[in-house]
Amino acid sequence: MAHIYIYSPAGAVRDKAGFKRGVKRLTSQGHQVEIDKDALTSHERFAGDDVTRLQAIARAASSGADLTLITRGGYGLTRILPQINYKQIAKSIENGTHWMGYSDFTAFQAALFAKTGTATISGASLIADFGVDTSKAEVDDITEACFDDVLLEQNEGAGWVMPKRTQADRVLCEQYALNPLSIKASSKNSAVLWGGNLSVLTSLIGTPYMPQIKGGVLWFEDTGESPFRIERMLTTWLHAGILAQQKAILLGQFTESKLYPHDKGFSMATVTARLRSQLKIPVLTGLPFGHVPTKVMLPFGKPVRLLCDGGDAMLLWDEL
Amino acid sequence: MAHIYIYSPAGAVRDKAGFKRGVKRLTSQGHQVEIDKDALTSHERFAGDDVTRLQAIARAASSGADLTLITRGGYGLTRILPQINYKQIAKSIENGTHWMGYSDFTAFQAALFAKTGTATISGASLIADFGVDTSKAEVDDITEACFDDVLLEQNEGAGWVMPKRTQADRVLCEQYALNPLSIKASSKNSAVLWGGNLSVLTSLIGTPYMPQIKGGVLWFEDTGESPFRIERMLTTWLHAGILAQQKAILLGQFTESKLYPHDKGFSMATVTARLRSQLKIPVLTGLPFGHVPTKVMLPFGKPVRLLCDGGDAMLLWDEL
Repeated sequence: MAHIYIYSPAGAVRDKAGFKRGVKRLTSQGHQVEIDKDALTSHERFAGDDVTRLQAIARAASSGADLTLITRGGYGLTRILPQINYKQIAKSIENGTHWMGYSDFTAFQAALFAKTGTATISGASLIADFGVDTSKAEVDDITEACFDDVLLEQNEGAGWVMPKRTQADRVLCEQYALNPLSIKASSKNSAVLWGGNLSVLTSLIGTPYMPQIKGGVLWFEDTGESPFRIERMLTTWLHAGILAQQKAILLGQFTESKLYPHDKGFSMATVTARLRSQLKIPVLTGLPFGHVPTKVMLPFGKPVRLLCDGGDAMLLWDEL
Repeated sequence: MAHIYIYSPAGAVRDKAGFKRGVKRLTSQGHQVEIDKDALTSHERFAGDDVTRLQAIARAASSGADLTLITRGGYGLTRILPQINYKQIAKSIENGTHWMGYSDFTAFQAALFAKTGTATISGASLIADFGVDTSKAEVDDITEACFDDVLLEQNEGAGWVMPKRTQADRVLCEQYALNPLSIKASSKNSAVLWGGNLSVLTSLIGTPYMPQIKGGVLWFEDTGESPFRIERMLTTWLHAGILAQQKAILLGQFTESKLYPHDKGFSMATVTARLRSQLKIPVLTGLPFGHVPTKVMLPFGKPVRLLCDGGDAMLLWDEL
């Protein structure tokens, strides 16, 4: 069983009950759960002021844990990126500590990769994934199985069925049935998997915390953004020339995507169709990741193989 | 009286009554109001598809009008930036046509300046400013007076009183009372005024449509963004190194800025205070611009003088 270090690098934990349930669940599975002393600290909307959160990250890095896990995302990492000790974190990863989180945590993953080329895991967070109120719902078994694979050093791939929501999606799946898609690393830094929360990652464009990855497999998810905002963000990526430099784009789950009467048919499907019209590379949908219960654990910064046969897609990588 | 060309480069006009009121108001003041043939066209959430809107912009450029005025903003210019004929627009400006708008129009202004160095006016839009339902409210007299100044070629400055909302603001105003602030152009491209809608302008960072302005006076406004999102956007500017290269930052009106219980005191005042702590240049508040009735008409891309004495601030420029 594993040594898991729980800390709060971003938003303050308001859901104390969820926090307790999450800790209890991991503990009951035999893990040694170590809780950072400021995991429940609160300052404004943050889990402590900037210095407090930076110190929590540093303690996580020196914890010697098998895995560091964020309590939750929210907002808070972007503004402390210049002060993070990336070398210390890269060293901890070299020594066997996995770093996991998602959403706001994307900023940390991108910055660490930009500064040190070190890979982290886009995966669970404590409260959203393990703190589920089991009187109302269950902890997702795919998420939990993938999480366990990480701890067993057996997290080596992710597969999913692409949803055939639109005519364009159906045509695409048929094409791949006739002519399966296979993307793989052609050199050392090729077909690197990267991505995460679209809003957070977009906010790093033009800054020193944006990885410079060419020939990568880039994925996005987001929550609470309306289709026009999602398209505006993707347009930034298009105009910056970053999308055309990738080998493939994967779209995860876009949830709580508010539609207004004014949108008149301008939906996520419209955004996807336009994105495809602007790019020559494949844009695949349905990646099981986002602000949803079912999440696969994706390495940020590892070379991958992407296979696609009809509606079935698969990512494969060497164990992290 | 002036020849005003009305067109729709972005969102579809849903408020037909407001459109009619706006046209009527300008006409009743003796202006010759020319309406683009696709001003009321609708496609998805846009005022016509991309080609339709590009053609509308081209017709505005060849109209020979004294002023081209957008019906409204919304969302739509960002995605057609690569196809706009900037030279044609710069030529029309050289020949005496003013281009005016705000919000989504910021993308057009920034791109035009980046591509040609030509100045446009951040000012009114037809429906929001002249289409007011006068049974409920009045057309703002300051906005209207500033608009008339543009048409009379007498738009040469803007003054305002900085709101002393917080202790930090009060201290700042006292400092400027003891030691008035004076920023002026020290060379040809110095102290250039630029800015606009924060969300729209932020979406251009890292793209070829972002002006490269050093030593400028940069201003922002926005609507419907919560303080943490505003700070995340400002953090992108900070990390990209753009803010520190300016001579001053002016904050306009941030309206419909949703606060959540989780924010616990994280307000626009907090965002302003943090921004000041990260910069050595002045950050002034209260600029009368935004999604509000009272707007001054600001040149995007003209050198300005910025004067500040106590709570009074003033921008001065040569007539556009």
